[in-house]
Amino acid sequence: MKQDNCIFCKLANGDIPTNTIFEDEDVRVFLDAGPATKGHALVVPKNHYADIYEIEPDVLAKVAKVAQKVIRHATKVLGCDGYNLVQNNGEAAGQTVFHFHMHLIPRYKDMDNRNLISWTPGEVDEGEAKALCESLKIE
Amino acid sequence: MKQDNCIFCKLANGDIPTNTIFEDEDVRVFLDAGPATKGHALVVPKNHYADIYEIEPDVLAKVAKVAQKVIRHATKVLGCDGYNLVQNNGEAAGQTVFHFHMHLIPRYKDMDNRNLISWTPGEVDEGEAKALCESLKIE
Repeated sequence: MKQDNCIFCKLANGDIPTNTIFEDEDVRVFLDAGPATKGHALVVPKNHYADIYEIEPDVLAKVAKVAQKVIRHATKVLGCDGYNLVQNNGEAAGQTVFHFHMHLIPRYKDMDNRNLISWTPGEVDEGEAKALCESLKIE
Repeated sequence: MKQDNCIFCKLANGDIPTNTIFEDEDVRVFLDAGPATKGHALVVPKNHYADIYEIEPDVLAKVAKVAQKVIRHATKVLGCDGYNLVQNNGEAAGQTVFHFHMHLIPRYKDMDNRNLISWTPGEVDEGEAKALCESLKIE
């Protein structure tokens, strides 16, 4: 289902042109218009899902497989040294367009971009961690 | 296949104990020992794959589906406001353990962690972008 006022619905379905590198019945992969690095692309489902909470599991699986296919090929073409996959959900997580999308960001070792994806590891109290783990367990 | 000197092979297969929140025949999900935020977990396949270049597509799809299942549940338990999925490949991309893993990082709107996942959008020459797009196209 497309949503009328969603820019990514329009991009994913070809209503607005994109630099598309892959397309099938479920998803479109196109170059990000404001790339973090050269070759930065987005995998976007054609149907509207706001985020990982809404997307159908089989479509999510398809997104992951397409991401891998694109990355394997693009690494050879770009000559990059690695890749980050980033998928943000919720404004608190930095999501700005509320149509599910996965960022594929090539990384180059000669570029000063090591801090793109980083965090300071937190200290953990083992007792608290065990209690947290119990509360999060699923079958 | 397990690899002898790989710490994540040992963690994923239970040879070293972890705070496990989900496990099936293919993957284990456990709390990160140095969490970016409360509830930070890792989805790790039991077989050894260095990265997204090596992992079998069906195992990758399983990782994505399990990530979704964990996130849907954990969001309710943690009361968090969003989630980042991050999966790094290659030293240039910040990968430090060379056994495929996906980070599931809860985000809380009252925490000053908005810059955890961020970049400055680059400027793009449309002609260059079109040429790049052509070189990256796959069927």
